[in-house]
Amino acid sequence: MECPCRTNRQDAPLLSQSPPLATVPLLVANNFESFHRRHLPQTCVSFSSPEGRKLFTEAINCPQNYMHIYFPLAEQFITQAEPAYCGLATLAMCLNALQIDPGRLWKGPWRWFSEELFECCTSLSVAKEKGISLSEFLYLARCNGVITEDYRATKDFTLEHFRDIVKRSCATSSEIVVLNYSRKVLGQTGDGHFSPIGGYHAQEDMVLLMDVARFKYPPHWVKLSRMFESMQLVDPAMNLPRGLVVLKEGAEVTCTKNNVRQLMQCNDNTAPIFSQPCCSSSPSSVTDGRRMPNLAAPAKLKNWRCIC
Amino acid sequence: MECPCRTNRQDAPLLSQSPPLATVPLLVANNFESFHRRHLPQTCVSFSSPEGRKLFTEAINCPQNYMHIYFPLAEQFITQAEPAYCGLATLAMCLNALQIDPGRLWKGPWRWFSEELFECCTSLSVAKEKGISLSEFLYLARCNGVITEDYRATKDFTLEHFRDIVKRSCATSSEIVVLNYSRKVLGQTGDGHFSPIGGYHAQEDMVLLMDVARFKYPPHWVKLSRMFESMQLVDPAMNLPRGLVVLKEGAEVTCTKNNVRQLMQCNDNTAPIFSQPCCSSSPSSVTDGRRMPNLAAPAKLKNWRCIC
Repeated sequence: MECPCRTNRQDAPLLSQSPPLATVPLLVANNFESFHRRHLPQTCVSFSSPEGRKLFTEAINCPQNYMHIYFPLAEQFITQAEPAYCGLATLAMCLNALQIDPGRLWKGPWRWFSEELFECCTSLSVAKEKGISLSEFLYLARCNGVITEDYRATKDFTLEHFRDIVKRSCATSSEIVVLNYSRKVLGQTGDGHFSPIGGYHAQEDMVLLMDVARFKYPPHWVKLSRMFESMQLVDPAMNLPRGLVVLKEGAEVTCTKNNVRQLMQCNDNTAPIFSQPCCSSSPSSVTDGRRMPNLAAPAKLKNWRCIC
Repeated sequence: MECPCRTNRQDAPLLSQSPPLATVPLLVANNFESFHRRHLPQTCVSFSSPEGRKLFTEAINCPQNYMHIYFPLAEQFITQAEPAYCGLATLAMCLNALQIDPGRLWKGPWRWFSEELFECCTSLSVAKEKGISLSEFLYLARCNGVITEDYRATKDFTLEHFRDIVKRSCATSSEIVVLNYSRKVLGQTGDGHFSPIGGYHAQEDMVLLMDVARFKYPPHWVKLSRMFESMQLVDPAMNLPRGLVVLKEGAEVTCTKNNVRQLMQCNDNTAPIFSQPCCSSSPSSVTDGRRMPNLAAPAKLKNWRCIC
């Protein structure tokens, strides 16, 4: 029996209306085209390219060192679990990088952030189809115990201010800048997207984007001025420019116990955009959650192959 | 209505037999204890600690530079999707780092490796419960288009040989060393585990373990000699020491079209341990899969918030 890798219909959700695939090579059936990554446009320098490695090494060795934030982010770099989960994946990555305790279970006995943990506060089925907006990203961030600063890229927001925020955050291990921008300005396919900034190269005035759509693009360096422009493009779904959020560790957040689900699902244009947060990550619950019990390892079963 | 983060039974699989949790804080119900990370033992230096950053910077700046492999691995660092998926997650991470095209769909139009893509060749329900063995890891690696070298840490395998393999691989961007070892020797909780080596610090004779159980431990530096010892400990499920696999890019693999599923599920002690690979990643299919069609971006829908 042949291994069914390329003929199993479960692997081909977009072909679910097609005739049985038992003898049809998946990649060419019905002229359906699929992708293994995309080429980065020339505006972007791939992290692993010779030029990308040079930029990284220079930035790490720079006396000002705007690569402090790289280390916690690199530890938690993830691939978004669904093609439209860039916002949720970026948030999960940043919350783990800031060592926030979700105060609720992920899998087994572990408390950990992944996209599905945000089900409590948003509709994952809607997010899976449409992604989330900058406002929703903010709600979720505050709801899960981080302090936020946020900026829309309106006329009042200057390139110099943007650079100052990036420099300040990248020189710490406790503040992360997340950009909400249009890929179009970078010459990439697609449009609205979220990425955290993993570092700053002062001499070249470039930022390292740790793009969670890793099935498409690797992490890459981009000119700060281009990222500024990419936030200014108006988001047609909101009729507003996009912008950025700074996430900071610390649980000094007021738990107002609002009904977040209702807030998240209402029309973005009428919702209170930067309302108070909610959910159960109050300072005391987060502090409680951070205790680390000194339990013995689970009893070992002889037929287990791994006890991770 | 209060946000149900900590009282929703869907978030508490281990408490499924408990009484309704509507008013019971999740973390203390039935004395069930959960974890947010574990403390690294003193044998290990955390990647983000001051000492870890110093080791990293020294290794990056070292003239011999055994950190070449760090860049592609850092691009694809992931968290295992289930508590026993260390082998599958490590393999998916390495295959993506080596830019292997799976030749089959992941999600949407994207061809990409994640743990669930190995369903074709193994039982994920068994792997979820028990993990996979070193032999199974090898089958899966070959089946998916990489060349492998493998070593059991028997008496014939020396520390010097191990160091030579690590140095050679870490100085390339096209070879990855994956260790199968016992956590016990490192003073960590748990036992059998898989981790790729993300770099080597020659002066300190230490390796960087990019441990995919990131909900438990961050990436960390460990003495090479200790990792050697940790592979020598006999795996009681196999009655053999553990060992290592070197994964190399290149699709020069003989597709024998065996029934892998049958091979994978038989008793490890009687299975042909390093038999020929199978599956459909033949050289031509992988080459075909690597073509990158220059399709236009999908039609933009006005109400999409992200088009990643």
